[in-house]
Amino acid sequence: ENNASPSDGVFQKKAGMPARRSQHLLTDGYTNARLAHCEDSVKGRFDAILPTLKRVAGLSYGPDFVESAQRIARQTLDFDLSEELLDKAWVGGADMKALYAQCSFSALQAAAAQFVEDLNQQLETVEDTRNFFLDCGFHAVDISPCADGRLKGLTRYILRLPLSSFTRRKAYAGALFDVETDVHHWEETELRRFREGVPTPPESGTRYLKIAVYHTSSSDPSHQGCAAHGSNEHAALDGALERLNQFREAIENTFCCGASTDILLIGVDTDSDAIKVHVPDSKGDLSQHRVVDNAQLYRDTINLSADQARVAIYEAISKPNQQSPGWGAGEGQPHEGMRKLIANLLINNLSQIEYVEDLYDGCYPDIGHAERYISVGDGFDEVQMRNIAYYAHLHTLEEGVADMDVGIKIFTGLNVTRGLPIPVAIHYRYNAKVPGSRERTVVKAKRVEAAIRERYADLDGKGLLVCHLSVQDRPTGSAIETVGASA
Amino acid sequence: ENNASPSDGVFQKKAGMPARRSQHLLTDGYTNARLAHCEDSVKGRFDAILPTLKRVAGLSYGPDFVESAQRIARQTLDFDLSEELLDKAWVGGADMKALYAQCSFSALQAAAAQFVEDLNQQLETVEDTRNFFLDCGFHAVDISPCADGRLKGLTRYILRLPLSSFTRRKAYAGALFDVETDVHHWEETELRRFREGVPTPPESGTRYLKIAVYHTSSSDPSHQGCAAHGSNEHAALDGALERLNQFREAIENTFCCGASTDILLIGVDTDSDAIKVHVPDSKGDLSQHRVVDNAQLYRDTINLSADQARVAIYEAISKPNQQSPGWGAGEGQPHEGMRKLIANLLINNLSQIEYVEDLYDGCYPDIGHAERYISVGDGFDEVQMRNIAYYAHLHTLEEGVADMDVGIKIFTGLNVTRGLPIPVAIHYRYNAKVPGSRERTVVKAKRVEAAIRERYADLDGKGLLVCHLSVQDRPTGSAIETVGASA
Ligand SMILES: [Zn+2]
Ligand SMILES: [Zn+2]
Ligand SMILES: [Zn+2]
Ligand SMILES: [Zn+2]
Repeated sequence: ENNASPSDGVFQKKAGMPARRSQHLLTDGYTNARLAHCEDSVKGRFDAILPTLKRVAGLSYGPDFVESAQRIARQTLDFDLSEELLDKAWVGGADMKALYAQCSFSALQAAAAQFVEDLNQQLETVEDTRNFFLDCGFHAVDISPCADGRLKGLTRYILRLPLSSFTRRKAYAGALFDVETDVHHWEETELRRFREGVPTPPESGTRYLKIAVYHTSSSDPSHQGCAAHGSNEHAALDGALERLNQFREAIENTFCCGASTDILLIGVDTDSDAIKVHVPDSKGDLSQHRVVDNAQLYRDTINLSADQARVAIYEAISKPNQQSPGWGAGEGQPHEGMRKLIANLLINNLSQIEYVEDLYDGCYPDIGHAERYISVGDGFDEVQMRNIAYYAHLHTLEEGVADMDVGIKIFTGLNVTRGLPIPVAIHYRYNAKVPGSRERTVVKAKRVEAAIRERYADLDGKGLLVCHLSVQDRPTGSAIETVGASA
Repeated sequence: ENNASPSDGVFQKKAGMPARRSQHLLTDGYTNARLAHCEDSVKGRFDAILPTLKRVAGLSYGPDFVESAQRIARQTLDFDLSEELLDKAWVGGADMKALYAQCSFSALQAAAAQFVEDLNQQLETVEDTRNFFLDCGFHAVDISPCADGRLKGLTRYILRLPLSSFTRRKAYAGALFDVETDVHHWEETELRRFREGVPTPPESGTRYLKIAVYHTSSSDPSHQGCAAHGSNEHAALDGALERLNQFREAIENTFCCGASTDILLIGVDTDSDAIKVHVPDSKGDLSQHRVVDNAQLYRDTINLSADQARVAIYEAISKPNQQSPGWGAGEGQPHEGMRKLIANLLINNLSQIEYVEDLYDGCYPDIGHAERYISVGDGFDEVQMRNIAYYAHLHTLEEGVADMDVGIKIFTGLNVTRGLPIPVAIHYRYNAKVPGSRERTVVKAKRVEAAIRERYADLDGKGLLVCHLSVQDRPTGSAIETVGASA
């Protein structure tokens, strides 16, 4: 008996979801608590900025102004206010726009530091995950989600994978990843296997796995879906699937004999973080309709024992889309390692479904935009949290101008209407092994900043556009180096 | 006795150069004649455009206007005028700016076709050259000259190497090539060796050779040198050398054990096309001062027998920079294959020195700018001819805007002052093996066109900016596909 009676009041959390008497037995309550604490403290830092600055604004200027302001800041923020900005306050008062920007970037840096610390505590999990992927027959995992801010927590929260240099993540608007760049990454990976046998030698039979992740909004699918595809779920799915097939074909065309890759397509409901996994057939082909819906699986398995639930998950993978099996027909089952991987991703995601269930009654309150800053460039990969940044992945504004225009529009609504500037964090990765790479990357960051200031000169002229420039070496968890900050 | 007496009049071609009684015995008169014919016909096609159009402008409009115009064109050009443009002439006369642009692009296409035909006649030479490089111990040769139009004939004319997919050419302003892109090409090359043993298996001990080419102007070094380095020869040399060292170091840092490459630096005097070759030492290191000057070598060997000249060349390589040997001191000789390669490049270049000597008295009349169009993007690799295009290698105008501004400035002088539009040929290569690559490349060409039209809206509004868009598959000699032409 799965459904509670209507009179069950207190357990009936949301229409359509079964009442829950206990947690799902496959979920990880300990990690959920840790992640909740992390979300709390990161978002809390941003949320404390405005109240703090309002109190500072209430101080009258006097000999102890700077000290009083810092005292207030220390009570509510965990970083100092800029001494330089406070020192200037005696002429015409403190520059609140500049302080707001400084606080936003300080909160961002604190978040990054927190995630890096978190990473360092996960070293064992990283090694386990790496071995798990190898066990499943994958020597590399390359994930391209949509750049939408609501997917920013994909690996840490939604899929519960530790960040590491083993998995590669690169977000693109609409999950429309760059096939040429990915072929290049495939080449690098293969060359390392041939030259060094790392992580597996070429004759081992392991495979390169490319995953694309699209998204939808179950409660408002035609407005809060993927903006890059006009909130059309079918377009989002088809677009990502086409790129996956192009990637696989490009490698088969370019490198003969055995140069094969596995592809996998995942959908995320950004209201609940529940995933859908498109199950490959024995030939590695995907279908729009051969899919396991983890929200459904959560409901179906919530009252089962852990072992029963595991069996049910494997059954769902071997018989995906039971509602209309004809549509998603494929040629047989995926290989064993792929089935194991998918089962693991589904189980991991059950914890996240429960996380959203527990904290937000199964549906985030911010189903739309509530970002704290615009992230331009390679993005802060380590900062894995939903809806904290609007992300514009671009190497020149010329190529990414459509994404950037959307970001500026969103933040005109969020910030400018309240007189607050738009914080733009321009961040690029360099490769310390390539001489001159850091210098060239700094030049690139400055070029992009100049292009942004030129295009949005109107906002810039009013002090409503504040840029922060930083660079970072390639390895996951490297130090973030500030190379420019200017109001 | 090397110098002719002052009374030798007719043989005394240029002060400082020895009078010549006969050709240098190591030069290739047959190829010189073929190349002269090629230069004549390609430049002739461009030079015939204005006189032809002036005659067409003299025709009065009548029922046989189109036919008469085409008859004139057929006499002097080897392509037709646009019927569409001629048909419109009854209202307000023929659009001469549009016809000029159409003729320029037609001349360019004819030149490209001619070079492709020339390529097809060189198939044996290509195979010979490939074997020669392999003999010298090189499995790949990657050349980055400065993008200056005066180096556009580098491989075909100055170095006398046949174009092929074996050698890779990519021009950059100031020869400041992109280290990351080149590391990527190195990776592709190595992966193919590991996977397929092509062109040599990894255990063969052959090497990857990276060559950078800077330039100077011997007759006006401080004005007609490399614009990207402010016509400062030392800066041009140092800039290219730094990139070469960065490239070598990047590969050694990234790929351990035996991942070594050879580097070579060449200077070109764009007045005479004479080269200077910087000779590596036994460790592969280069020096600004350890250099063989081929103009000097030409003078020193002009009266020797072929065998004596060859010996003299090898001696120069083993003792470069005899004038001040201390400055360019290195640790021993380069390996035998490298010496063989350098000797061959020097001998090849003797023919080009003689070519310029014969046709232009040892110094081109157009030591400055006399380009026919602006080439944007990947450039027409097959069109290997000096001073025919101003080249702006760019993938976004944002990155390449400085180069493009210079080009527009040059053509404002060359064309706009005479009321003629600036022909801009936007050309990109795609990879037919990567699905969707051609479509994405066409989109890129159109994006760059839009950015150019926006930046130079002033010229565009007056019809003084005409763009031609084309794409081409990767292999050398592939068809050039027009994907857009608009006045
Ligand atoms: Zn590649
Ligand atoms: Zn999206
Ligand atoms: Zn690479
Ligand atoms: Zn130059």
